[in-house]
Amino acid sequence: MQQPLVGIIMGSDSDLPIMQEAANVLQHFGIAYELTVVSAHRTPARMMQYAQSARSRGLKVIIAGAGGAAHLPGMVASLTPLPVIGVPVKSSNSIDGWDSILSILQMPNGIPVATVALNAAKNAGILAASIIGSFNATIGDQVEAYKQEMEAAVLGKVAHLRQQGHPNGFDQ
Amino acid sequence: MQQPLVGIIMGSDSDLPIMQEAANVLQHFGIAYELTVVSAHRTPARMMQYAQSARSRGLKVIIAGAGGAAHLPGMVASLTPLPVIGVPVKSSNSIDGWDSILSILQMPNGIPVATVALNAAKNAGILAASIIGSFNATIGDQVEAYKQEMEAAVLGKVAHLRQQGHPNGFDQ
Amino acid sequence: MQQPLVGIIMGSDSDLPIMQEAANVLQHFGIAYELTVVSAHRTPARMMQYAQSARSRGLKVIIAGAGGAAHLPGMVASLTPLPVIGVPVKSSNSIDGWDSILSILQMPNGIPVATVALNAAKNAGILAASIIGSFNATIGDQVEAYKQEMEAAVLGKVAHLRQQGHPNGFDQ
Amino acid sequence: MQQPLVGIIMGSDSDLPIMQEAANVLQHFGIAYELTVVSAHRTPARMMQYAQSARSRGLKVIIAGAGGAAHLPGMVASLTPLPVIGVPVKSSNSIDGWDSILSILQMPNGIPVATVALNAAKNAGILAASIIGSFNATIGDQVEAYKQEMEAAVLGKVAHLRQQGHPNGFDQ
Amino acid sequence: MQQPLVGIIMGSDSDLPIMQEAANVLQHFGIAYELTVVSAHRTPARMMQYAQSARSRGLKVIIAGAGGAAHLPGMVASLTPLPVIGVPVKSSNSIDGWDSILSILQMPNGIPVATVALNAAKNAGILAASIIGSFNATIGDQVEAYKQEMEAAVLGKVAHLRQQGHPNGFDQ
Amino acid sequence: MQQPLVGIIMGSDSDLPIMQEAANVLQHFGIAYELTVVSAHRTPARMMQYAQSARSRGLKVIIAGAGGAAHLPGMVASLTPLPVIGVPVKSSNSIDGWDSILSILQMPNGIPVATVALNAAKNAGILAASIIGSFNATIGDQVEAYKQEMEAAVLGKVAHLRQQGHPNGFDQ
Amino acid sequence: MQQPLVGIIMGSDSDLPIMQEAANVLQHFGIAYELTVVSAHRTPARMMQYAQSARSRGLKVIIAGAGGAAHLPGMVASLTPLPVIGVPVKSSNSIDGWDSILSILQMPNGIPVATVALNAAKNAGILAASIIGSFNATIGDQVEAYKQEMEAAVLGKVAHLRQQGHPNGFDQ
Amino acid sequence: MQQPLVGIIMGSDSDLPIMQEAANVLQHFGIAYELTVVSAHRTPARMMQYAQSARSRGLKVIIAGAGGAAHLPGMVASLTPLPVIGVPVKSSNSIDGWDSILSILQMPNGIPVATVALNAAKNAGILAASIIGSFNATIGDQVEAYKQEMEAAVLGKVAHLRQQGHPNGFDQ
Repeated sequence: MQQPLVGIIMGSDSDLPIMQEAANVLQHFGIAYELTVVSAHRTPARMMQYAQSARSRGLKVIIAGAGGAAHLPGMVASLTPLPVIGVPVKSSNSIDGWDSILSILQMPNGIPVATVALNAAKNAGILAASIIGSFNATIGDQVEAYKQEMEAAVLGKVAHLRQQGHPNGFDQ
Repeated sequence: MQQPLVGIIMGSDSDLPIMQEAANVLQHFGIAYELTVVSAHRTPARMMQYAQSARSRGLKVIIAGAGGAAHLPGMVASLTPLPVIGVPVKSSNSIDGWDSILSILQMPNGIPVATVALNAAKNAGILAASIIGSFNATIGDQVEAYKQEMEAAVLGKVAHLRQQGHPNGFDQ
Repeated sequence: MQQPLVGIIMGSDSDLPIMQEAANVLQHFGIAYELTVVSAHRTPARMMQYAQSARSRGLKVIIAGAGGAAHLPGMVASLTPLPVIGVPVKSSNSIDGWDSILSILQMPNGIPVATVALNAAKNAGILAASIIGSFNATIGDQVEAYKQEMEAAVLGKVAHLRQQGHPNGFDQ
Repeated sequence: MQQPLVGIIMGSDSDLPIMQEAANVLQHFGIAYELTVVSAHRTPARMMQYAQSARSRGLKVIIAGAGGAAHLPGMVASLTPLPVIGVPVKSSNSIDGWDSILSILQMPNGIPVATVALNAAKNAGILAASIIGSFNATIGDQVEAYKQEMEAAVLGKVAHLRQQGHPNGFDQ
Repeated sequence: MQQPLVGIIMGSDSDLPIMQEAANVLQHFGIAYELTVVSAHRTPARMMQYAQSARSRGLKVIIAGAGGAAHLPGMVASLTPLPVIGVPVKSSNSIDGWDSILSILQMPNGIPVATVALNAAKNAGILAASIIGSFNATIGDQVEAYKQEMEAAVLGKVAHLRQQGHPNGFDQ
Repeated sequence: MQQPLVGIIMGSDSDLPIMQEAANVLQHFGIAYELTVVSAHRTPARMMQYAQSARSRGLKVIIAGAGGAAHLPGMVASLTPLPVIGVPVKSSNSIDGWDSILSILQMPNGIPVATVALNAAKNAGILAASIIGSFNATIGDQVEAYKQEMEAAVLGKVAHLRQQGHPNGFDQ
Repeated sequence: MQQPLVGIIMGSDSDLPIMQEAANVLQHFGIAYELTVVSAHRTPARMMQYAQSARSRGLKVIIAGAGGAAHLPGMVASLTPLPVIGVPVKSSNSIDGWDSILSILQMPNGIPVATVALNAAKNAGILAASIIGSFNATIGDQVEAYKQEMEAAVLGKVAHLRQQGHPNGFDQ
Repeated sequence: MQQPLVGIIMGSDSDLPIMQEAANVLQHFGIAYELTVVSAHRTPARMMQYAQSARSRGLKVIIAGAGGAAHLPGMVASLTPLPVIGVPVKSSNSIDGWDSILSILQMPNGIPVATVALNAAKNAGILAASIIGSFNATIGDQVEAYKQEMEAAVLGKVAHLRQQGHPNGFDQ
């Protein structure tokens, strides 16, 4: 197995359908990752070991997803010098996601968490790729290309709308 | 020093003016307590030791106050079988206190935190006294008396309003 | 019937599916409980009698669940020296649960309610066990064991994810 | 003393500066009122007696103000057939008033509280006058006249703005 | 037709399923009512005529329901000396009902609206009955009886829960 | 093709079912429009060209719809002197629409966006017609007529409710 | 006096310090305006006359500001075919401005209000100029120039920051 | 001047007191940075040039702060493959900061912004250092040391509280 650069962890395996999207994007960019369950509240000792060993094990970025009173991203950030990306997950008894957003985003001075949108594990993966791409030109070029592919996809939809007969005075 | 029954901890000494009210109430009830700073994010190892030793050191209740993305009460609750009372503190860059409330209250299944109102350290102290009073008749009687004193204080205000001339058809 | 130590009450029998989870957890810990309907608004006299007799009947903790403008937990807390755990229930016309959370949590000075997360009756039961376990070593040990079982359950999921082929550089 | 028709009660005398405005408006309309402190949480027995005797004592409307987890208006409404007007008071540790608004407004089926705006004790007084005025033509005429006075006051401000030189093509 | 005492109006006939509950309750109390559609935004002239004629037509209370930026209750209140009860309706594109609640509740000084809970047309009907009952002893007695029926219904559920085997140390 | 006066753009073709309602209303008023996809984040260069050419291409109003962190309306407004109407779209991972509303509405000084209600593309179309109708008497008359048709439609519903037997003392 | 093209109205003269900014911006663009107080709740008849005469009096746009349960913009919009710009004003007892924002923004289908940011009367003035500028090339050019002046002002600040010694690798 | 690795930009120089904290932290870590004003709405062309040239100019991370409807961080993220850290700034007419938080955080799929807490420019600087430290061992070690210094600072406060006489059974 290639040395993983990104660690993807989640508070519960019920978050896997969301968090898998981070893994998929990293795979798309050819970035090795590891993925497992680490619970701040149910496995605090495991969380400490995971976070404290992360840098020496060669990880460059950690992506942590959790719902409700989501403490995993912030606690991991307190235990490692690596950048930690937090994914607020809208879990079943969440109050519309506000709880996970605020308990990940509003970290005190000294312990930042790079928070992405609600359930936005895909964006967490892209952000991890951006970070690695800042220091690895090949990945950096791939991220740049990825944005161009998105542009092309939108232009394809523009053409499709025209073909369906929507009036379009701009793209004549 | 008497064996402390209640541990009062806070994420930062800037929370002391709020959290001192818990200590004052416990002193009023003659319940021995300890009070110190334990930060989930800045001293995670200390937090683990504090929480894991709490029961064996003789504590019966832990009161934990924190602001913003407040992880201290929930993390301590994950590390001890003792009841943990959480005090959401409205810190300076808080979003009106919503962040600390939600990150303390919305704990996942298995790890409850007994949350009180925003900045309500005094109520945290009374709740701790209630808990101890359930198993210690002297303290229980004191809590009951405390509620009667509150009633008497209100009745004093009723009399005062009458003396000031506010019409009062009820307390004739 | 064994002397109940925990009283579980709810404002309406429509809250029973939620509140039953508190009873189930207490049963798991072998803690005797009673369960009934007490409505602050529809049976105020019954509420007063329930709350005022609770301590002398031998209860140690009261768990009260209610939705909307939820007054049951706070009113009961004003009528007994026992610790009261409040469960905000997300009822049908609730505004996403904010009404029940705020009307249980934001109690004035002197009358705390130990509030748990939205619909978190299970956590209310565990918190009641924690409280009893602070003064009863057998229950205290059981609560400690319960947390270890949760940890073991997570580790089981970790193993399961590895078997499914998710890359895992940490648990090699 | 004239038989009071409106009972003004508040959870704490710290609410008096707000609640006095209800009294002032009633005085303006020549409607006899009584005013005192009744706390749901600190004087529950007094609250029951107040509410249960209100109708037989000749009251027609009750105005109840409270802050935070405000239970007074709803509890009084559960104990009397009289209409109860609730005034959410923005108290010091309130979360911007949301707690008092929601715990007064969101009453369950069967127990309405006529809620007015945050701190709007003046409007509570006017609403009480409206209710009495529906069955007392003199008061009803006064309420109608009150609205015309407000209209005249606005027209005075219109004239004042013109005199200050603000262009006004409408009121030429 | 008996002279209606309560006017029930709504901004759109899509609100009828909600607002019908107010009519049903009034029918239960034997209080004559009228029910129609009056839109502040689509029929402003009709709204003015409705509100301005209401008192002289013999109405005692107006119940107005509306959703979104709900202006009907407040505008009607500005045009009549009668008490106006506002029912915030959670319409399809509403933001969880916050828009209708705030645009009905937060009326300026001088123009109160007696606001009830979200979708609580039934409570609006009961409140109207309370108001009429303050001046009509027969209706007042009925409202009092209605509250006792609610109490009896709860006690029936208490008995039912016992029969189902839920432990009950209180109602032995 | 007639010269379009209104440009309808949206951040993603998934917004088309909502935004089509703007086009339908314009068609009803006989106002030529164009409709296409322009993404602030995926096609920023296209967005600049679209906005910067809009005035010279003869557009009078731009309607821009977007969800989540919705930057399209505000960015277009910064690039054109034309009035820009913003439609907050409640997209799938939106937090109840608050994100799109606030990121469209709360524009800084100097760069207004004329924001309409959540998902209210139909109202955006009517607002565009109002703007054009201010300077084109035919369209202005049509908008006026449109409001009268709405009034007639409500009156039709009034009649329908009467026929169904709802008591109606007002429209006798 | 020049024929006013924009009518600026507000619910109360206490809103004048905010609403004056709309007038100032129109003056900057040389657009004639009128400014007065029109209250939906205190002068409903005046509001109807103002709105219904607006088009025939030659106005092209109406700017309406109001706070709390702000009905003025929406009611005026229901009474005129002209575009109505709504300014939510954060008044003293407002709940952080949410009430005025939602009661202006969330208008039902058929009656749009072009809502700007909280207290953003200046932006309301610019939006009115944009609308007029769409049909008046001189004003349109001025609006375009205004945006360029803003750009120049920012570039001046860029230069100022460099002079203060802030490192600047971009504007070398 | 050393080649800047971090670009700090803000929408307005009124954000400088907040954003300077990011610069201070980078200086502490010896990381070269640049700092200037780039406004998405007032200088869109400058923003495009800044963002599109950032990678080729040698920047590794961009920190962008903005308030209200904050589009700068998201627009820059759409124009560069570099990681962009967004700082929501609580500006004067902000709605308690919710507008800037949501318009930075809730970015659509494909364009992440690494959002930090409200006004948390210091944390943005630390996050930038973490990112650089993942690929530069010296900086990585410094970030690790920084966290240890925070721990030491807390322990100093623990000692100070003991000296002040607060009972402390844990740190005997």
